[in-house]
Amino acid sequence: MVATREYKVVGTRPIRPDGADKVTGRAEYGVDTRLPGMLYGRVKRSPHAHAMIKKIDASRALALPGVKAVITAADFPEPQVVDGPVGEGPAPNPMHYQLAAIMANKKALYVGHPIAAVCATDPHIAEDALDLIEIDYEVLPFVQDVREAMAKGAPILLDDLRTRAPEPLKQSLNLTDGPTNIASVTRFERGDIAAGFKEADVVIEREFETSMFHQGYIEPHAGTAFWNKDGKLTVWSSSQGHFMVRASCSALLHIPVSQINAVPMEIGGGFGGKTIVYLEPLAALLSKKTGKPVKLTMTRAEVLEATGPTSGTYMRVKIGAKKDGTITAAQVHLAFEAGAFPGSPVGAGGLCALGPYSLTNSQVDCFDVVLNKPKVAAYRAPGAPASEFGVETVINEIAKQLDIDPIELRLKNAAREGMPGPFGAPHGPVGAIEVLEQMRNHPHYRSELQGENQGRGIAMGFWFNGGGPRSVSATLNPDGSVGLVSGNVDVGGLRSSMAIMLAETLGIAHDDIHPHIVPTDDIGDTGMSGGSSSAYSSGWAVFEVGQELKRKLTERAARIWEVDADTVEYGKDGVLRCVDGRSMTFKELCGRLNSTGGSISAANTTVRQGNAPAYAGHIVDVEVDKETGKVEILRYTAFQDAGTAIHPSYVEGQVQGGAVQGIGMALTEEYVWGKNGQMLNASLLDYRMPTALDLPMIETVLVEVPNPNHPYGVRGVGEVSIVPPMPAIQAAIAEAAGVHLYRAPMSSKVVLEALLDQQG
Amino acid sequence: MVATREYKVVGTRPIRPDGADKVTGRAEYGVDTRLPGMLYGRVKRSPHAHAMIKKIDASRALALPGVKAVITAADFPEPQVVDGPVGEGPAPNPMHYQLAAIMANKKALYVGHPIAAVCATDPHIAEDALDLIEIDYEVLPFVQDVREAMAKGAPILLDDLRTRAPEPLKQSLNLTDGPTNIASVTRFERGDIAAGFKEADVVIEREFETSMFHQGYIEPHAGTAFWNKDGKLTVWSSSQGHFMVRASCSALLHIPVSQINAVPMEIGGGFGGKTIVYLEPLAALLSKKTGKPVKLTMTRAEVLEATGPTSGTYMRVKIGAKKDGTITAAQVHLAFEAGAFPGSPVGAGGLCALGPYSLTNSQVDCFDVVLNKPKVAAYRAPGAPASEFGVETVINEIAKQLDIDPIELRLKNAAREGMPGPFGAPHGPVGAIEVLEQMRNHPHYRSELQGENQGRGIAMGFWFNGGGPRSVSATLNPDGSVGLVSGNVDVGGLRSSMAIMLAETLGIAHDDIHPHIVPTDDIGDTGMSGGSSSAYSSGWAVFEVGQELKRKLTERAARIWEVDADTVEYGKDGVLRCVDGRSMTFKELCGRLNSTGGSISAANTTVRQGNAPAYAGHIVDVEVDKETGKVEILRYTAFQDAGTAIHPSYVEGQVQGGAVQGIGMALTEEYVWGKNGQMLNASLLDYRMPTALDLPMIETVLVEVPNPNHPYGVRGVGEVSIVPPMPAIQAAIAEAAGVHLYRAPMSSKVVLEALLDQQG
Repeated sequence: MVATREYKVVGTRPIRPDGADKVTGRAEYGVDTRLPGMLYGRVKRSPHAHAMIKKIDASRALALPGVKAVITAADFPEPQVVDGPVGEGPAPNPMHYQLAAIMANKKALYVGHPIAAVCATDPHIAEDALDLIEIDYEVLPFVQDVREAMAKGAPILLDDLRTRAPEPLKQSLNLTDGPTNIASVTRFERGDIAAGFKEADVVIEREFETSMFHQGYIEPHAGTAFWNKDGKLTVWSSSQGHFMVRASCSALLHIPVSQINAVPMEIGGGFGGKTIVYLEPLAALLSKKTGKPVKLTMTRAEVLEATGPTSGTYMRVKIGAKKDGTITAAQVHLAFEAGAFPGSPVGAGGLCALGPYSLTNSQVDCFDVVLNKPKVAAYRAPGAPASEFGVETVINEIAKQLDIDPIELRLKNAAREGMPGPFGAPHGPVGAIEVLEQMRNHPHYRSELQGENQGRGIAMGFWFNGGGPRSVSATLNPDGSVGLVSGNVDVGGLRSSMAIMLAETLGIAHDDIHPHIVPTDDIGDTGMSGGSSSAYSSGWAVFEVGQELKRKLTERAARIWEVDADTVEYGKDGVLRCVDGRSMTFKELCGRLNSTGGSISAANTTVRQGNAPAYAGHIVDVEVDKETGKVEILRYTAFQDAGTAIHPSYVEGQVQGGAVQGIGMALTEEYVWGKNGQMLNASLLDYRMPTALDLPMIETVLVEVPNPNHPYGVRGVGEVSIVPPMPAIQAAIAEAAGVHLYRAPMSSKVVLEALLDQQG
Repeated sequence: MVATREYKVVGTRPIRPDGADKVTGRAEYGVDTRLPGMLYGRVKRSPHAHAMIKKIDASRALALPGVKAVITAADFPEPQVVDGPVGEGPAPNPMHYQLAAIMANKKALYVGHPIAAVCATDPHIAEDALDLIEIDYEVLPFVQDVREAMAKGAPILLDDLRTRAPEPLKQSLNLTDGPTNIASVTRFERGDIAAGFKEADVVIEREFETSMFHQGYIEPHAGTAFWNKDGKLTVWSSSQGHFMVRASCSALLHIPVSQINAVPMEIGGGFGGKTIVYLEPLAALLSKKTGKPVKLTMTRAEVLEATGPTSGTYMRVKIGAKKDGTITAAQVHLAFEAGAFPGSPVGAGGLCALGPYSLTNSQVDCFDVVLNKPKVAAYRAPGAPASEFGVETVINEIAKQLDIDPIELRLKNAAREGMPGPFGAPHGPVGAIEVLEQMRNHPHYRSELQGENQGRGIAMGFWFNGGGPRSVSATLNPDGSVGLVSGNVDVGGLRSSMAIMLAETLGIAHDDIHPHIVPTDDIGDTGMSGGSSSAYSSGWAVFEVGQELKRKLTERAARIWEVDADTVEYGKDGVLRCVDGRSMTFKELCGRLNSTGGSISAANTTVRQGNAPAYAGHIVDVEVDKETGKVEILRYTAFQDAGTAIHPSYVEGQVQGGAVQGIGMALTEEYVWGKNGQMLNASLLDYRMPTALDLPMIETVLVEVPNPNHPYGVRGVGEVSIVPPMPAIQAAIAEAAGVHLYRAPMSSKVVLEALLDQQG
């Protein structure tokens, strides 16, 4: 609610500095890398969901004119123990899993698993060479259902995998100590759920299933590498963090990070899916073998079949409440598909499941399960859309049963300052109440539905925003502009957001800040653009650099005026004033730097904890076509606690984009599996994401509750809006058509079947 | 003399970080820029040495399929007054001269003067289009001899040019107040030369002439520009300073520096000739007109005819000395060709003329004269080779006449600490004496000549090394390596020299520093790689950044150990030690940064005055073929006061390269002019530079007299070694063949003619 009107630049909507390049096609993405003598690579992939690799014979491929090299897992150095995880996930995988995820070693674990890679002078020759790489497989039974994968007797994917879990929990859940597909079990507990359920007047328990969903970024993966004769490796790719690319290549290829320069190309969407490497290490090894630069690109089918979607899930949610709406207990069981290697976002899903609320008694069990599907990756608020789909749906049903307005019920139980947050520590100022109040008072919520077969649903969403290291440096130009250099990939307007915050700090204009994202060689350690952390963390870094610039400018002005530095003050308006009445603007001083001791620079690496979580609340009206089961979104309003909205247009864009991706999960997106474990709909025609034609304008309401742990009140804004759509739409369909669906997507087929069941 | 042995890294000879790229052809030079949709440009040049441009008709060129745009001077914005000079020179030229130097406006002033530029989809189409640009000229009389240009009645190049000189000097020299080709006259005076000459026992006066000489860098100029739709201009070119490219484009095109990103490509030689722009503004305007990136490249003939060689000169030198060798007076008259616009290096030549000595009575007059030749540019120790050719030759003749060893004569008069330097202020510790003593004691000087027609000559050289702003930033990697980012173009091993100095500062290894040169957008203001300033100035900047890193590392170690920062010391060996006995290496601490508050960065822009001048002394043995006049270099030893030699191999390389360029001036290089004022030998076959086959190995002796105004004792090393060859070879030829030559080059033809004269 606190307005940004105390600011001059924060809260304005300037044009992004990278805009012209992007709309004119000049911006260079991963696939645009072109180097002299470059070779083109392709990946040979497993056609089997589970198979032993008995033999790989590349001799025919290598004999094809133009083919320059073939690599397999044998070309990678022996896995070593390295510090720190590669990629993201609840627990870092051992190096031999990480390596086998990049290229199968002895065993193929899903259809699309890389088995070999080839490069040639021409992409078509490389394509032709794929068929000439001959592989003997021994096909094994496979498992693709999470409950079947957890069951005794299931095909085991990883011989050495043992369940990571506290011993008492393992015993109470009767888990084996032997080979298993259950990589880990984690329990989050608070209070006493048995006692809680006893207090309840109403208890509802439901089972849920969700499909794997893909991030659907428009830019397929592309990676180019050149391994120079002096041992230096340069990698060009689009990712959510080129320091991650550098760290991953270092760990997988056993070369020090300082021998790798990772160059950030523009990114055409990531949403979590570009937080890990697929092609870069292969391109690097092919380059090492050939002495030439090598580029690998994925087709759309490869992106869908062999990169990291989010987990399909099986979930049970049981919630009890008193007649007045007080929730007395919640029990959540989450089984998440990790894909072929451990590492689903089930832990994050578990922590977020009850995030919008402060409950006394709760228990959340999180199962991370491997099965014969591609290894999952992060996807916008990883794990939260599924777990909160279950919880929010049950809460909506409790509200219905108790005849309490669903917003009122939520307000009664909502997270608030001083109550324990998901990590146990008490919340600071959080925006759950403010979001719910804005929803309750909004014309959308107060409006009447207008027709037959229409319904309205609401739901909340929670996501804990992250932080992490960010490096920036800044230099002053004689024309009074500032060069701002960052290592933080710009996925959603970060250049402009950083420029706004530095402009505010220095009291100058947005357009006088010129931000640039530079390679790992040219800036300090910087975390990924993920976890809704970038504006928060890079905001801190530019603020710190701004303070240093102001200090140095103040000293310089004092030197020019021949006074003590403490008699000069740097004003919020960018004017330096001496107590004796003299003054000079930032621009004037910049023009005098070169002749008074030289220009001024500052650099900073900042690691800040203390980012604050985000809350979203959505209201959706739908109409169900009872003939076809098709669900049409009539109106959609997304409310979000954005902290301070640094550049409101980009915040609104994030909110809209998240909502649309959540709508896709709710209604149309789905992985459809064939009888051999292959994805049947590996194209954007068949993997059906919502388009602008499918949807009304997503209305947005930014609820600004500033984060006290940030100089400009920033919270993360990028992720939470993907959480509410599934349960909100579920409730709207229930009201519109009287059918209660507990799986996503709630596709036309699913709705129609439910309608037919309803009619008997 | 002072050893570098107190250092661990300074004085070692590691392999340069850019070595592999350069020897494998991966390094990208100006011509290697390739952009999607790029157009290719060519420049239409004047065939006349002096002509009015009556009309330019590009219609036929524009009608040629593939031709996209033609520009002329009319496409540039009206010249404005701007702050600060563009390019280098004794006085900045007004903007309309700077603009007319880039593209002729109404008048062509030399053969090769740009009149128009064209771009097309293909370089051959652009080439063909040149002939279709029709220009009506009114041909004017031209002047190419510096004395003729100064004479009354000479053709006047620039109607508004008036002599810049103090009024009394103008009157005493009888200079007109009206239109003239004499751009400026400067007099440097000390003591009373009339009295000095009276004291002399011997007075010798000689007249000298030198040709224009070209720097002969192996890489022709190439510039690519893209003027984006949002007004941002990106320029890719190889230059000695991309901040100069940015400033020049800003001034000529009237756009703020912050709207320009100048990207430094690798540089294939510059030697002063790449301190100004030729093609970049043309490429920018063609890009603005077409909306596409445009690349312009020069042919070798264009480089020789239409870039900036050094001045041809006419000089008179008169020196008097007592019998004991004490020089009592010196009078020097220098008339330097500026080319078509003012700005020869005559001022620098005048200041350096007597630089090796501390004389009581001297007078140096410097005439800057325009004439119908290309505008000169800086060339290695600009102006000094010519002026010192005259002075050193006369001193050698005085030594001969007085029968004093030429080294002893010089030692008697040499510059030394406390005596006035060329700017009047007393010298600090300078190395003239040390260089002369090393020469006297060297086996080369003590050896006997072995054959007929052989002779030995020696000469000294002086150059004042420069300074200027330098920006660097540094970041620490978890593997204990350092990313070092600089804006200073690496022309002669600077990356390695910076790495050595930062490694020494931090107590780590050279190979743990990874230096990178980045665009203007990504680093602070940085001066050009010129004036022998780079190692000095960037050395200061990396030292300052190293100090900041050490301070931050010390604070971090203290935080980890939970002690006060002042109980921790950063040792010269890169080990941090606490008074309580605990210790940690730099690398260990780097590995712990990410988990203890994040990585560490530092940035700095430094402007340091106080660089110290350089002295060189050369000994050369020659043999003259009396049949052909050919002079063969038998042995060549170059001594130089290098301050501390940071990377001795690169210092030796600079000394050798400078000596070879000086040998080229002395013997073979020459601009030969045709009757229409055109250069007759515009190719590297005919403009004859010495090759490795022409010369013996140049032996080098580094005399290390540290500069007290630098943390590692650096002086500039790049330029002074070009100064002594002409006079040393002149003296050697005189001894070998008995002919006294007062012009350079002393080509076979000149020597043979003198031999024939000698024989009558």
